[in-house]
Amino acid sequence: MVKYLKQDEAINIDQELFNVYKFSVDQLMELAGLSCATAVYKCFPPNGNQNNKVLVLCGPGNNGGDGLVCARHMKLFGYLPEVYYPVRTDKALYHNLVHQCVLSGVPVSDVLPENLNTYDILVDALFGFSFKPPVRPKFVSAIDALNATNKPICSIDVPSGWSIEGVPESNGISPELLISLTAPKECAKNFKGKYHYLGGRFVPKELEEKYKLQLPPFPGTECCVKL
Amino acid sequence: MVKYLKQDEAINIDQELFNVYKFSVDQLMELAGLSCATAVYKCFPPNGNQNNKVLVLCGPGNNGGDGLVCARHMKLFGYLPEVYYPVRTDKALYHNLVHQCVLSGVPVSDVLPENLNTYDILVDALFGFSFKPPVRPKFVSAIDALNATNKPICSIDVPSGWSIEGVPESNGISPELLISLTAPKECAKNFKGKYHYLGGRFVPKELEEKYKLQLPPFPGTECCVKL
Repeated sequence: MVKYLKQDEAINIDQELFNVYKFSVDQLMELAGLSCATAVYKCFPPNGNQNNKVLVLCGPGNNGGDGLVCARHMKLFGYLPEVYYPVRTDKALYHNLVHQCVLSGVPVSDVLPENLNTYDILVDALFGFSFKPPVRPKFVSAIDALNATNKPICSIDVPSGWSIEGVPESNGISPELLISLTAPKECAKNFKGKYHYLGGRFVPKELEEKYKLQLPPFPGTECCVKL
Repeated sequence: MVKYLKQDEAINIDQELFNVYKFSVDQLMELAGLSCATAVYKCFPPNGNQNNKVLVLCGPGNNGGDGLVCARHMKLFGYLPEVYYPVRTDKALYHNLVHQCVLSGVPVSDVLPENLNTYDILVDALFGFSFKPPVRPKFVSAIDALNATNKPICSIDVPSGWSIEGVPESNGISPELLISLTAPKECAKNFKGKYHYLGGRFVPKELEEKYKLQLPPFPGTECCVKL
């Protein structure tokens, strides 16, 4: 049985990947975002004129960075993604991730589209494992819009607005797909959507054992696995 | 028909990915190395105690970096890879790639094993598209060893020692698998091995069109495609 992480454990594993294993954010974000795009494809493949229009909602931290990478790979997979990115992280990597999107034909905007139902798929990359409630004012309208839509939501790592260890707020969003990265977080036990995937296939065996993650085997060369 | 690149074109496309599209080496090397590990798996999957022992021979440049990434992903795929890396690049990324290998249980050595036939698969990551003959003395013994082995060689981007545009030297190595990255190089027309794959699925449409690459479609979410 795969382990569900508390917030502290998730933060410690993340720190260890960077500080002990010396991975760069560029490396792991690329693999994480790719695995998210792949999981979305498995559940909602692009299909002629259906399932093509995607809005990726990106938050101000690493979860948003995963979303920017995911959007770029979705473009290569045949989707028509757009990015909503209202609070931009002022780091070179993030400037470059936005630039890569734009030059790949993925528009990036800081204006929330009026009606999310004009999209076929919504990718929620607003908040990740370091989120602590409440949602800051700048993002309330995005969470409200995700609550109001009837289109499938795919959440990266954590359904945005949910507390990492607790139960969802009464007005929590209801994703159809959750892609846990590295290992699922405790709140994933309350996930009621159709598809739960694990992505981020980069955890060295020794780190997995140290934290007793008991990750399921990834089939073949797959970058994500259904839980 | 996919285009076969001259050396200058390959260098220009590479420069454009970094300077115009603002990709980092970390990002593209991770995707390139992953696609190489995936192509090797498709041709020579690990199978109980067979096809498990792998030697990845890494050169001093980016081709060697792709090899280091490939080795790490092969470990996650269930192989037992080791790395031969005699001339180390003195850049932070390369130090970290070696460190990631070692901490992932992939030994890295600067001593060429005496008999390459004790391995099941040899991954040739010695020289890439910027190679100009002759092979420098430090690497002659590795090329000789690859020439002498009866085990399958998988070459990353270019069969090492071959000139990028010309015909192989009479003593050129004979890989069974060639994984071209971004687009095949002219020398790939002389490739006589069993499997030719294209990896490195990260070329934006506009760049592909500018250089008239005419890349084949990658199936689904695959990171490599058989040519």
